Amino acid sequence: MKYCSACGAEVGLRVPAGDQRPRHVCTACGSIHYLNPKLVAGALPIWEDKVLLCRRAIEPRSGFWTLPAGFMEIGESTGEAAIRETLEEACARIELGEMYTLVNLPQISQVHIIYRARLLDLDFAPGEESLETRLFAEHEIPWEKIAFRSIYLSLRHYFKDRANGHFLFREETLGALS
Amino acid sequence: MKYCSACGAEVGLRVPAGDQRPRHVCTACGSIHYLNPKLVAGALPIWEDKVLLCRRAIEPRSGFWTLPAGFMEIGESTGEAAIRETLEEACARIELGEMYTLVNLPQISQVHIIYRARLLDLDFAPGEESLETRLFAEHEIPWEKIAFRSIYLSLRHYFKDRANGHFLFREETLGALS
Ligand SMILES: [Zn+2]
Ligand SMILES: [Zn+2]
Repeated sequence: MKYCSACGAEVGLRVPAGDQRPRHVCTACGSIHYLNPKLVAGALPIWEDKVLLCRRAIEPRSGFWTLPAGFMEIGESTGEAAIRETLEEACARIELGEMYTLVNLPQISQVHIIYRARLLDLDFAPGEESLETRLFAEHEIPWEKIAFRSIYLSLRHYFKDRANGHFLFREETLGALS
Repeated sequence: MKYCSACGAEVGLRVPAGDQRPRHVCTACGSIHYLNPKLVAGALPIWEDKVLLCRRAIEPRSGFWTLPAGFMEIGESTGEAAIRETLEEACARIELGEMYTLVNLPQISQVHIIYRARLLDLDFAPGEESLETRLFAEHEIPWEKIAFRSIYLSLRHYFKDRANGHFLFREETLGALS
C-alpha cells in the first residue's frame, strides 16, 4: 500500500495514538488503512458415500483437486459464501450442514472455514474456475493431488469422523511448511 | 475507495473478466481492490464461577460491557488474536480453551469468534480501551448494558451450557435489528 484510497496522497508507516503497531497512515488526510486477514469459506458436499471435488483451472495450484471454496464477499455470512462458492465452482446445489473445520493459516493471513453439506442433485459441472468436477469415494481420493493443506485436513477429518460415527467441529492452525 | 493504493490513480467500479460482481478497479494500473469481511476474535475468561468483562472506553458502545475482543491482525491466528486482545483490553493472561461461538454479522461484514478461556491470575486491570474490568457471577451480569449482540449471545450460551454440564460450539448469523 503506497497511496491513500480516500484521497490519493502518499501513505507512510507510523504508529497511531493509542495503537501498538505501525499502520499505513495518509500523510494528507490522516486516514488509517488497516490490513486484515481474509476469510475463505467452502463446502464438503456429500452424495451417498462420495464427496464432490473440483479440479482447479486457475492459479494457485491449477490442475490440483479441491473442495469448492473461496473468499467471502462483503455482506454475506460464512454459510452463504460456502453455498455461493459451491454453485460458482461446481454448479452444484447443496444443503448446508454444520460448520466442520476452521483452519488458521497465519503465514498467508487467511482463515479457511469448511461446512459439511449434502449435495442436492447430480447436475453438477465445472464452473469457470474449474477444469473438472467429480464424486470420489474415500479410496478414490487423489490425496497426492489435493490443492491446499486446509482441504486435505478437512477431508482426512471427514473420513475419520465418518468411520467413528460422529462429526466434531475442529479448529487447526497450520505452521510454515518445513 | 476512490484512489488506487498501488499507484494513486482513480479507481472505478467495473466487473473484471471472469468475475460476477463490480470491483474497485484502477483506471491506470488495472489493480483490482477487493473488499473483504473482517474477523473479530475474543475470549470469555473464567475465574471460578465468574466471567471477566470490560467496560468500553471507546466508541462504538462506550460505557457498555463486553468480553475482551478485537480485530484480528495480519500474521496471527484467531486464537493468538483472542489472547492478545485479552491482554490489551483487560491486561489479563488467559489459557485458551476451545473455540466456542462464531457469529456472522453480514450487515456490517464482520465475523466474531469467541473462545472459552481460563483466567490465569487476578492481576487484571483496564487497558487503554477499557474504563473498568470486573469479574461477574451469572446473577451479576449487566445484561441490559452488554455492548454487542455477539457478546450477549456468547454469554447466554455459556451460562446455559454450563448449567447443562457441557459446552457446544455454536455458529450463529445475526440479522438486522428490527
Ligand atoms: Zn488520504
Ligand atoms: Zn493503480
